[in-house]
Amino acid sequence: MDRKGWVTALGLLAWLGACTVGPAQGGKLLVAPVDGSHWFSLQVLVEELSRRGHEVVVLVPELSFFLQGSEHYRTEVFHVPYTKEELDASIQRLREGGFKEMKASDVIANVQHLITFTNTQVKGCEGLLYDIPLMDRLRSEGFELVLTDPFLPCGPLIAETFAIPAVYFLWGMPCGLDNLATQCPMPPSYVPRFFSGNTDVMNFPQRVKNMLFTIQEIFLCWKLYASFNELTSRYLGRDTTYKEVLSHGAIWLMRYDFTFQYPRPLMPNVVLIGGINCAKRNPLSAEVETFVNGSGEHGFVVFTLGSMVSQFPEEKVQQFLEAFRQIPQRVLWRYTGPLPANIPHNVKLMNWLPQNDLLGHPKARVFIAHGGTHGVYEGICNAVPMVFMPLFGDQYDNVQRMVARGVAEVLSATDVTSEQIVWALNEVINDTSYKEKMLKLSAIHKDRPIEPLDLAVHWTEFVMRHKGAEHLRPAAHNLNWFQYHSLDVIGLLLTVAVTVVVVTVKSCTFCFRKCCRRKSQKKKNE
Amino acid sequence: MDRKGWVTALGLLAWLGACTVGPAQGGKLLVAPVDGSHWFSLQVLVEELSRRGHEVVVLVPELSFFLQGSEHYRTEVFHVPYTKEELDASIQRLREGGFKEMKASDVIANVQHLITFTNTQVKGCEGLLYDIPLMDRLRSEGFELVLTDPFLPCGPLIAETFAIPAVYFLWGMPCGLDNLATQCPMPPSYVPRFFSGNTDVMNFPQRVKNMLFTIQEIFLCWKLYASFNELTSRYLGRDTTYKEVLSHGAIWLMRYDFTFQYPRPLMPNVVLIGGINCAKRNPLSAEVETFVNGSGEHGFVVFTLGSMVSQFPEEKVQQFLEAFRQIPQRVLWRYTGPLPANIPHNVKLMNWLPQNDLLGHPKARVFIAHGGTHGVYEGICNAVPMVFMPLFGDQYDNVQRMVARGVAEVLSATDVTSEQIVWALNEVINDTSYKEKMLKLSAIHKDRPIEPLDLAVHWTEFVMRHKGAEHLRPAAHNLNWFQYHSLDVIGLLLTVAVTVVVVTVKSCTFCFRKCCRRKSQKKKNE
Repeated sequence: MDRKGWVTALGLLAWLGACTVGPAQGGKLLVAPVDGSHWFSLQVLVEELSRRGHEVVVLVPELSFFLQGSEHYRTEVFHVPYTKEELDASIQRLREGGFKEMKASDVIANVQHLITFTNTQVKGCEGLLYDIPLMDRLRSEGFELVLTDPFLPCGPLIAETFAIPAVYFLWGMPCGLDNLATQCPMPPSYVPRFFSGNTDVMNFPQRVKNMLFTIQEIFLCWKLYASFNELTSRYLGRDTTYKEVLSHGAIWLMRYDFTFQYPRPLMPNVVLIGGINCAKRNPLSAEVETFVNGSGEHGFVVFTLGSMVSQFPEEKVQQFLEAFRQIPQRVLWRYTGPLPANIPHNVKLMNWLPQNDLLGHPKARVFIAHGGTHGVYEGICNAVPMVFMPLFGDQYDNVQRMVARGVAEVLSATDVTSEQIVWALNEVINDTSYKEKMLKLSAIHKDRPIEPLDLAVHWTEFVMRHKGAEHLRPAAHNLNWFQYHSLDVIGLLLTVAVTVVVVTVKSCTFCFRKCCRRKSQKKKNE
Repeated sequence: MDRKGWVTALGLLAWLGACTVGPAQGGKLLVAPVDGSHWFSLQVLVEELSRRGHEVVVLVPELSFFLQGSEHYRTEVFHVPYTKEELDASIQRLREGGFKEMKASDVIANVQHLITFTNTQVKGCEGLLYDIPLMDRLRSEGFELVLTDPFLPCGPLIAETFAIPAVYFLWGMPCGLDNLATQCPMPPSYVPRFFSGNTDVMNFPQRVKNMLFTIQEIFLCWKLYASFNELTSRYLGRDTTYKEVLSHGAIWLMRYDFTFQYPRPLMPNVVLIGGINCAKRNPLSAEVETFVNGSGEHGFVVFTLGSMVSQFPEEKVQQFLEAFRQIPQRVLWRYTGPLPANIPHNVKLMNWLPQNDLLGHPKARVFIAHGGTHGVYEGICNAVPMVFMPLFGDQYDNVQRMVARGVAEVLSATDVTSEQIVWALNEVINDTSYKEKMLKLSAIHKDRPIEPLDLAVHWTEFVMRHKGAEHLRPAAHNLNWFQYHSLDVIGLLLTVAVTVVVVTVKSCTFCFRKCCRRKSQKKKNE
């Protein structure tokens, strides 16, 4: 080999050496995803695993919003015991809440809608789990791992019955079931609870509220996961809970990042992969490229309310159009409702927006979004300040975190006006502090030793290579809550301490009295 | 450029792209190390930082064991207010304990020795901190970061007064001060305390013992860090504690790994770099290479009791020599005491052993060590089963973790005999389970997305780039222990609950009585 040849070989060798994630192992994974926006980031990992030479089979319900076949993986379609109309209705009820003024009865109704929606999804799981021929076929295929979103019980239950390890991929779980299942301490004194409206810095009344929300979560968990627990016990044929099954997950790939969430304790088998959805990037289409490039020095606004909300009430549409008419920026709006008549010339409505690609464009000025986690991460990754209009679920909390960091403003969906929209846009665009803080946040977010996608691939492959990650499972799982909090030990020690004090005091009193009596006796005798 | 040239360029480009840690930023760091074995792994990071283009200044006391100048960094030598004899005496008292049978009075004496040793070191710190010309010169140099081992207060106090961020590099701190300073929850129900002899799985009496050790740690901390707290308050001119200063550390690089330690909660600014000391590897000298290669199929034993213990009692030496005479393996022994007369032909005594390089040799069969963390990691990295003879400090705990994993046997330093040594060596060499378990443990340890050294470099550079890591600092630091545990909130809620119950019961009783009285009145009237 000549000198150049050697240099080439050395270069390649260096490349191989520098790659921290080893070559593909050619494993076989079963993926049990959750439909809706949950799928968008899991899909990034699934496609990457396939690209690295793993055989991937994705379980897809026959009725779904976004789950579908791909050249990257094989799909197994399973029957679900509900109709398209029932599915649409269950999600529609969830969506509607956002734009209405909330009364106490609405909050309860919303929780009920969430339970109905979840129960519909659980029924879908049952359709899969009790499809004996399909399950037998899957079992015989010799999968090494189940990669799943534990928001629904299908994946964790399959892993349990197939006796293979599970890797979970998630943002978080309602009522903090993920923390309970990983045995992660979450002190209510500084870890704000969902929907509490608290940040991590709380005064006394806020801490009281946070504690009340913590207590309420116990009941919410019990109510929300009743159907999960029933299915789990019935399917596994033993009296158990969904939390117990979840606790055997080898690795929890969580879409968390501390540029977004508040710092709090973590467990060793929790791997943070927040921002993984930013990895997917494509060039803009010629049409969109022309539109945004034509926005001149003022740049453009990206406006989308997420995958599940593409149309919204006519009067709100008019408020936004009225606002957009007053700003010099161009606007790209994901909109699928009935076409309004008076669309300003600077607004372009589209059925679907390549969000991340648009936000990566240097002329992107503001991102108007609902506060879903994918959108928030895309805003952070691309350093685009945001204007939020949260609609339901965790969106209120997500938004608050960004507002607290000074990189976003928030609008109320129930009574938004064009004036407020114009004010918020002007504020975020013209007050440079939003952009400056966002640039800093983005720099911190992207300054990581390894990309979230590589990290997710590594740990998924790790679990396949070592058939689990038992060395990361804390012994806390062997304890009940009474033992975990050492209440029995504290009880014993307190009893001993009290006994010692009482006996000592009694003895002293006794001696003292004896002594006194003897003295007084002596005096009397004298 | 011809085809080969392009391939070369592409290879190099790929290498650059694949490197997860960016190019050197050319920062300026001040390193405040701790002498002894503490330095060995910090040195690896310091040299790597220098190699990557950072300007590194290391603070070295004029009297030291291992701290010295190097081509990789500049040193600043400072005066210490003790003599070589005083330093040697303070360490000698610590060393002596290991080989003696322990009585209760010895335990207290040992704690006293530890306090004396620490106080001597703290005095050294004072020598540095109150060297005004040196401190002024350092301050004017514009360091961006202090990289330090918080085992001693010099580094953290310099960072505090220079108002620059600090990165801590450590294994752990006596009485768990690191957990207190990072606000890391350590439930005593499954996180074994130092010296408790517990593993992570405890029965009720063991949990009681663990709780008692937890309580005792509070007093130990108070006693052990009294001189630290006094110096901190005096030097900073305000009433504060060393823990409070420590809590401002940006990143804690901890030599932890869950193949060694038990799984437990972690805080976001704690970065695990266990095994970083294995990164340093050199070829064996010709003399050593010949000796170990001549060991044939039986292989060889590596024997060292760490950097601080190179000689030990004559009768123990004889027991070991007697044992080695009976085994077919060759033995390399780090030994600096008076040369014994009857050295068997299979034993080679050396002043210093290249531990990690020797353990990486395919003929290495067993590693006899004292259970210091560096040695344990070198055993794990190189998959060599171990025979331990712990002598002091955390070594008993370290050893127990390895024995619990089935990769090591343990000997008692106080009454070791040649029979026991032969038994332990034969057990570990001939029972293949030790080697098999060690191979698995080693594979898990080394299967990581990024090397500990690269991780340590990344986070050190991160802190320099962003002037801290404020986004990883939990809000728990704003709370006192009463608030942290929500005791005030629980108090209020309990008071409200009790009041409600009492008022309800009283009201009911009142109504009931009224009702009864009326009825009985009615009856009477009738």
